[in-house]
Amino acid sequence: MNFIDFDKLSSFATLKNLARSPFDLRRPSVLSFRSRLSDYTIFSEPFELNYGFQRVDDEILSALQAMADEAGLIDKFMAMKQGEVLNYIAGVESENRQVLHTACRDVFRDTPDCLQAAAEAREQLQLLKGFLHDLDSGRLLNEQGQAFETMVQVGIGGSELGPRVVCQALETYARPGRKVRFIANVDPGDASAVFADIDISRTIFNVVSKSGSTMETSTNEAVVRQALREKGLDPARHIIAVTGKGSRMDDKNKYARIFYMFDYIGGRYSVSSMVGMVVLGFLLGYEQVMEFLAGAHRMDVSAEERSIEKNIPLMMAMLGIWNRNFLDSSSLVILPYSQALDSFVSHIQQCDMESNGKMVSRQGKMVSWKTGPIVWGGVGTRGQHAFYQLLHQGTEEFSLEFIGFCRSQTGYDLEVEGTTLQEKLLANMFAQARAFAEGQDSANPNKFFPGNTASSILLADKLTPETMGALMALYEHKIVFQGFCWSINSFDQEGVQLGKKLAVDILRNIETSRCGRHDGCHNERTRGACWIELMFKNQA
Amino acid sequence: MNFIDFDKLSSFATLKNLARSPFDLRRPSVLSFRSRLSDYTIFSEPFELNYGFQRVDDEILSALQAMADEAGLIDKFMAMKQGEVLNYIAGVESENRQVLHTACRDVFRDTPDCLQAAAEAREQLQLLKGFLHDLDSGRLLNEQGQAFETMVQVGIGGSELGPRVVCQALETYARPGRKVRFIANVDPGDASAVFADIDISRTIFNVVSKSGSTMETSTNEAVVRQALREKGLDPARHIIAVTGKGSRMDDKNKYARIFYMFDYIGGRYSVSSMVGMVVLGFLLGYEQVMEFLAGAHRMDVSAEERSIEKNIPLMMAMLGIWNRNFLDSSSLVILPYSQALDSFVSHIQQCDMESNGKMVSRQGKMVSWKTGPIVWGGVGTRGQHAFYQLLHQGTEEFSLEFIGFCRSQTGYDLEVEGTTLQEKLLANMFAQARAFAEGQDSANPNKFFPGNTASSILLADKLTPETMGALMALYEHKIVFQGFCWSINSFDQEGVQLGKKLAVDILRNIETSRCGRHDGCHNERTRGACWIELMFKNQA
Repeated sequence: MNFIDFDKLSSFATLKNLARSPFDLRRPSVLSFRSRLSDYTIFSEPFELNYGFQRVDDEILSALQAMADEAGLIDKFMAMKQGEVLNYIAGVESENRQVLHTACRDVFRDTPDCLQAAAEAREQLQLLKGFLHDLDSGRLLNEQGQAFETMVQVGIGGSELGPRVVCQALETYARPGRKVRFIANVDPGDASAVFADIDISRTIFNVVSKSGSTMETSTNEAVVRQALREKGLDPARHIIAVTGKGSRMDDKNKYARIFYMFDYIGGRYSVSSMVGMVVLGFLLGYEQVMEFLAGAHRMDVSAEERSIEKNIPLMMAMLGIWNRNFLDSSSLVILPYSQALDSFVSHIQQCDMESNGKMVSRQGKMVSWKTGPIVWGGVGTRGQHAFYQLLHQGTEEFSLEFIGFCRSQTGYDLEVEGTTLQEKLLANMFAQARAFAEGQDSANPNKFFPGNTASSILLADKLTPETMGALMALYEHKIVFQGFCWSINSFDQEGVQLGKKLAVDILRNIETSRCGRHDGCHNERTRGACWIELMFKNQA
Repeated sequence: MNFIDFDKLSSFATLKNLARSPFDLRRPSVLSFRSRLSDYTIFSEPFELNYGFQRVDDEILSALQAMADEAGLIDKFMAMKQGEVLNYIAGVESENRQVLHTACRDVFRDTPDCLQAAAEAREQLQLLKGFLHDLDSGRLLNEQGQAFETMVQVGIGGSELGPRVVCQALETYARPGRKVRFIANVDPGDASAVFADIDISRTIFNVVSKSGSTMETSTNEAVVRQALREKGLDPARHIIAVTGKGSRMDDKNKYARIFYMFDYIGGRYSVSSMVGMVVLGFLLGYEQVMEFLAGAHRMDVSAEERSIEKNIPLMMAMLGIWNRNFLDSSSLVILPYSQALDSFVSHIQQCDMESNGKMVSRQGKMVSWKTGPIVWGGVGTRGQHAFYQLLHQGTEEFSLEFIGFCRSQTGYDLEVEGTTLQEKLLANMFAQARAFAEGQDSANPNKFFPGNTASSILLADKLTPETMGALMALYEHKIVFQGFCWSINSFDQEGVQLGKKLAVDILRNIETSRCGRHDGCHNERTRGACWIELMFKNQA
């Protein structure tokens, strides 16, 4: 695969030049805004993207299209879906794997992009269908012959964030009497808070780790087994697993069921694999799983469009690059106007920052351009009363991505003082996009708003399983397109290794020096000093 | 009060000069790290701060002390506590108010800093004591003579975030049978999800708004009243209020109780007023409220120390300025290694970014220096599996604040493979601080870690009400010190007004053009266009 250094692309120079006079959002009259906003819209069901509040014009958009073409983003994306090894860095030891999360939902047509991976996905879905049926039909019950009412997923990183976000977003569609919880953190308070909130005898635990050796997850699995035994319950009856074939968890004697995830699916891209679909299936049912996957698959197909004006994730990727590399925006703020997406940002943080927070190019050289931005944010309107002050009148540069839905998810609504809650919610979203763009002049400097903060608006009718599948896929592809364009490997995460290694050193020092430590740690004057000693013990 | 432009301070030039060669954390041997880390520690019960992993040496620390002195930070802080009008901008229309959140906990001594505000705080605490006693003794019951088991706080911004964070952090100490929930967002899904989770007949709602006219809060109050009436319940029996004296909510016929908050307490600084203490008292009891306040008050007093080496919030403020203004760190990452502090960052985001996300100086001029940074983060070890990749190997500059506790909050723990969960948790925190500082050389560029990322470590024995009170106060003071130093007004929030105003315009357009809109909004091709029309209706 041909990767070109980002700053060697000929479109890089063109864009650098155009960036001297980006489109001025404070300038246009209301009238021209109106036509910009209508023109700069992409429809790709179930979403529409409005990018009229971005600092672009037709010339800049052409240059962004040229960059997408020159960097071969669509060709690389197709190759990825077809199973080419794209998780690699040339010339150095790297993971050297395929990247096939899209195969998890390529289960709706006779000629999928990658036959083998799609077949494996189908097989796991059949197992899931059987599992969910066994729960419903009473083949899988607890010791007292009762149905399981709670699933607790034990996993961290990709095995927690995506699945948690999807379950929270769709909780309103939960089957009566079903709930899900998550244990992720090695903090003992995480597990104990969950235990306080469930009836453990009616709980099935889903332990999720591809390697089978994630420290937090195997520790929390031990905690769960202990808790079950203390209640006289049989762990082999209450625990299922999602893991890699042949991992140390791949043991049918220890788990009531085992689902597989595969080497070619990275943790942060794994929500549509069994990592996310087992727990979502437990909560909503198998049909809703298939709707979620159908929404994702539809986005997978529409992301093949070569024209940025027809491809939402590609357009969002290129606008992100324009803001990041040419207009010096140091962070991307994601603002869903939907309480159900309260933790959506935490998933995108992981997916984006772990994928594109890189400083080594595909050629194994230090990059000389900015890669992934800080990604943060939070739901509106709550954020308006929290951090928007700094966005409007602070001293940093940002770009914004709004996400909204025309109709309320539950159908529940009320008219208060002339308009409904949902109308108030969306009115605020559009008003903010406009305020960020236009700013406000004032004789009072404290009422001056500089404006020219770029935003996109993603809009769909309603947050359903299908919409949520599409939204997750949309961001996956946006991130992958950006990684291809920056010529970095968006599929490994070497940066998480060093801290892990140093933690193991400290833990070994604790084990070999039991006495003294506990006194030290609990003596108010030497707590930190005690840990510092542990950190450097046995070193020069 | 004498405010000097930040870049006119003579220490500014000194620090600019020193920033050419900040302390290199990759250089010191293990041995010197060990002594740095012990030397660079401040004890201020219940916390200790370790700043050995900051890019400072004694010379830089002296210059930071000189800046704190020159900018008169402690004098201004004392004046604030004593009731001087410090919420102002010279020469322009501004709020012109006192800033007296510290008075809420200045209730433990005969000579408080500000007599009148402390007396008002005491009076509210007496009312709270009576209210909580009435709940316990059965004087306040529901229609069926049952005790209230749930309190739902209805509020947004400071009326939600601080109170929610404190309740979550201390939930493990909850009185049996008591729980709290929050409704903040105008999204109808927020209220309906809470209703699905409570027994409304046994719920008391606490509506919190200083002005009594916050759009989200009055809308959600209407939703709550409607829900109560639908169940045949009496709103005046189920709703209490925290509001400003004389606000449109200050009506004893509408609420079972009314508590007051005062003009001199800003929303984001209001957690220790009735805004936070009514709901915390409901959850934990009055004694725990007093412990929380005692912890905060203790920090208020220790923050009077003039020496940065004895004053944790002052030291953190000055280190933050060093990183932000002299070492070009664009964001501050807060990393509590405590699951109970899962949403702590969202409160600090508000408190910091709404206070210091400003571009106008105390003299009413546009600033020419950077003010408040982006504040984000998340709990460890979960974040390690999410966004740490970018922190270790991305292309941005950060500084980090770790927060840890020696002992688990619940007492629950387990030894797994030689060490307890709490030990694994803290070992990871210290290992990360070291990894960020030292980095790692490697022949494989993908295993290279540049290091030199500065961090502080805040450590306490255990997360109790007292510790939590101290932690909230600590960050309040850190933020206030930075605002004084940057010569900005940390106490207003003009930046939230423009979006509100534009939202009201859109809502008025909806009211006056009922027909057409709904069709438009639900027609898949014109959803966004429809909102755009509404946004610009009646304009040129």
